[in-house]
Amino acid sequence: MDASPVITLTTDFGLDDAYVGTMKGVILSIVSDARLVDITHRIASQDVRQTAYVLYTVYRFFPPHTVHLVVVDPGVGSARRAIALRTPRGSFVGPDNGVFSYVMAEQPLTAAVELADPRYRRARVSQTFHGRDIFAPAAAHLAAGVPIDQFGPLVPDPVTLPLPHLQVNPNVISGEVLHVDHFGNVITSIGCLFWEAEELTLRPAFRGTGETGAQEVHFRADEASVTAEGHEIQGVRRTYAEVEPGDALALVGSTGHLEIAVREGSGARELGLQVGDPVELRW
Amino acid sequence: MDASPVITLTTDFGLDDAYVGTMKGVILSIVSDARLVDITHRIASQDVRQTAYVLYTVYRFFPPHTVHLVVVDPGVGSARRAIALRTPRGSFVGPDNGVFSYVMAEQPLTAAVELADPRYRRARVSQTFHGRDIFAPAAAHLAAGVPIDQFGPLVPDPVTLPLPHLQVNPNVISGEVLHVDHFGNVITSIGCLFWEAEELTLRPAFRGTGETGAQEVHFRADEASVTAEGHEIQGVRRTYAEVEPGDALALVGSTGHLEIAVREGSGARELGLQVGDPVELRW
Amino acid sequence: MDASPVITLTTDFGLDDAYVGTMKGVILSIVSDARLVDITHRIASQDVRQTAYVLYTVYRFFPPHTVHLVVVDPGVGSARRAIALRTPRGSFVGPDNGVFSYVMAEQPLTAAVELADPRYRRARVSQTFHGRDIFAPAAAHLAAGVPIDQFGPLVPDPVTLPLPHLQVNPNVISGEVLHVDHFGNVITSIGCLFWEAEELTLRPAFRGTGETGAQEVHFRADEASVTAEGHEIQGVRRTYAEVEPGDALALVGSTGHLEIAVREGSGARELGLQVGDPVELRW
Repeated sequence: MDASPVITLTTDFGLDDAYVGTMKGVILSIVSDARLVDITHRIASQDVRQTAYVLYTVYRFFPPHTVHLVVVDPGVGSARRAIALRTPRGSFVGPDNGVFSYVMAEQPLTAAVELADPRYRRARVSQTFHGRDIFAPAAAHLAAGVPIDQFGPLVPDPVTLPLPHLQVNPNVISGEVLHVDHFGNVITSIGCLFWEAEELTLRPAFRGTGETGAQEVHFRADEASVTAEGHEIQGVRRTYAEVEPGDALALVGSTGHLEIAVREGSGARELGLQVGDPVELRW
Repeated sequence: MDASPVITLTTDFGLDDAYVGTMKGVILSIVSDARLVDITHRIASQDVRQTAYVLYTVYRFFPPHTVHLVVVDPGVGSARRAIALRTPRGSFVGPDNGVFSYVMAEQPLTAAVELADPRYRRARVSQTFHGRDIFAPAAAHLAAGVPIDQFGPLVPDPVTLPLPHLQVNPNVISGEVLHVDHFGNVITSIGCLFWEAEELTLRPAFRGTGETGAQEVHFRADEASVTAEGHEIQGVRRTYAEVEPGDALALVGSTGHLEIAVREGSGARELGLQVGDPVELRW
Repeated sequence: MDASPVITLTTDFGLDDAYVGTMKGVILSIVSDARLVDITHRIASQDVRQTAYVLYTVYRFFPPHTVHLVVVDPGVGSARRAIALRTPRGSFVGPDNGVFSYVMAEQPLTAAVELADPRYRRARVSQTFHGRDIFAPAAAHLAAGVPIDQFGPLVPDPVTLPLPHLQVNPNVISGEVLHVDHFGNVITSIGCLFWEAEELTLRPAFRGTGETGAQEVHFRADEASVTAEGHEIQGVRRTYAEVEPGDALALVGSTGHLEIAVREGSGARELGLQVGDPVELRW
């Protein structure tokens, strides 16, 4: 096994300052052969829920030995814990504020510890930049092979956010807008959807959620309709190319979630949709 | 040969979402020692022509074993092909929509294939994110050494865009604005220009173009003038420092193309120039 | 010693164009195993002082064998020199225009040379893109192990900017705003500050400065007050969490400098502060 350590970085630090570069310097000083992959540094300032969503979409595509370092940390300097989690599909380092909630809803934790051991911190810990002094060193040591139980005491109860709304009934699924992407595509909590010929199967995402009323439902894509903020869209499509430029459509997006889009336009802007808005799928 | 695989990424995905990170996870899961280099992810949404220009300026500076992965793909999910190209100066993976046109105008293709073999795709291919499911895996396998002819059938006729306007006459060269950069510098299709003492030689760029009326022309830089959108600029310079701050100038830019700039200002804004505007160089 | 070469990049090129990617291609063509780390490419256009600040905050966190490549170069094409510097805490490559001033104020130079030897440049040097043709090749060769004295003649007097204002008197320290970060936190020249229980020690930063009237001063954090642009803030804190959301505070920031912030808000916007504004700390 000669795969290099891989560390991803997700923050709300933006791209103007040297904070991200600083963390990378700290990491490379500890584990010189790490591969560093930026997920995004443009999380909206202190938006824990958006961070949880971004991690949920991305971790599954990385090798299992990857360490995902997350610094979106409104509570820096307060009593909130710093934690590391291990799952079969990757390890995670960051503040214990719920950023890992959506991952934890679908992956079992094989370890969860508090980052307490001073050997794996910088000697002087600033109260305003734990990304540099606690999280980056921990991610680096973890990626370098330090066993996770060396970092500190077990954490039996990492903080979790309420999971996204997703209610499955016999002929209707209700959910909410989870995210609006750079193109204006509106990604909803209604997922995950799988095609079998012309039929769709929903296997509820975020399996930790208690709301889900059914394990799995099936329906014909062309007999379904989607409503959101007063708009009704007929049918669920496979791809943008099935409608004319400028037309709205509902489709199964790349993460398996129902998306609302406008071909060659912004679904969010043209339909007036934003994060948290209710969405229904009926058939 | 111990050079690591190098893969560059050029997309219109922006920096807010996890799409680029997702593709990198897919690549590192296939070829763990790849070096990943972002060219830009801020191509204007679905702007195939701008993508073609960006690739044209950058590929020549990378090692020949580099794989350039491009995902600017307005036709995702339609019948447009997914292709890989090989040239003596690098390999290219992306949609067959013209993004490689300007490279192909100056590099011979030593192979062009369709990305058809399911061994080199993800098992489940989304119809909205071929970047993740088709292009990233293909770039990774190609960088890892899979022979290009393994990916699928030959493509005899990759899609090409019309090449930029460039007409060479005895005392005048006409061209167009190709690109406006971050500083407001206006890069034109009039190239490539080479200095020999005070004289300039033009060897027409985009040699695939049929418009070029001459193979090579020579003229004195200080006797030339440039006109664009009603502005006339005397002389062609080597560098910004030859004029006063705030003054407009024409110069040979870093890619060998004629540029119009304002020293310590924005040539595009101050002269009202944009992509596609006609430009003439006379002497 | 199998640590890979590390090269950081700091420019004002933005993220829309291929200029940064071009430099990376040049570097990887020379030193294929370099690790490339972006510090920021969003320095304000040609802002030498901001560049000096950014480097000052970041270089100390990288391994000492790191080469910091800087291209913020309003004088490109003029007679300004291209230089490489070596310090015990990293090497630096860029234009001789003051961008390294704040590093030089705290690190001794063990070498300073002009980048004159054509073996370590590209064959054809553009007069508008020394980043590609002079600085990137020099950084690559330096990272690959070429001795610094091979690059050209010694430079006895690299250009330096005036250091930031910092005047230490018995009961008052006067300084200025150095930087406003992405979150709106206002970082001042008053540093570096070290906690010992409830007391703060100031050891003047930028030790090259001649203004400093004292070597070291001590005071109680809760008896100090900070004034800037007509605002007065009582006490110096350790962390944002010590005040209520929306309240202004003064604190010791992550670089050891006095910062002015608003919890979960923008200190710069809410207090009307910008770079260069005077700041006083009294006790």
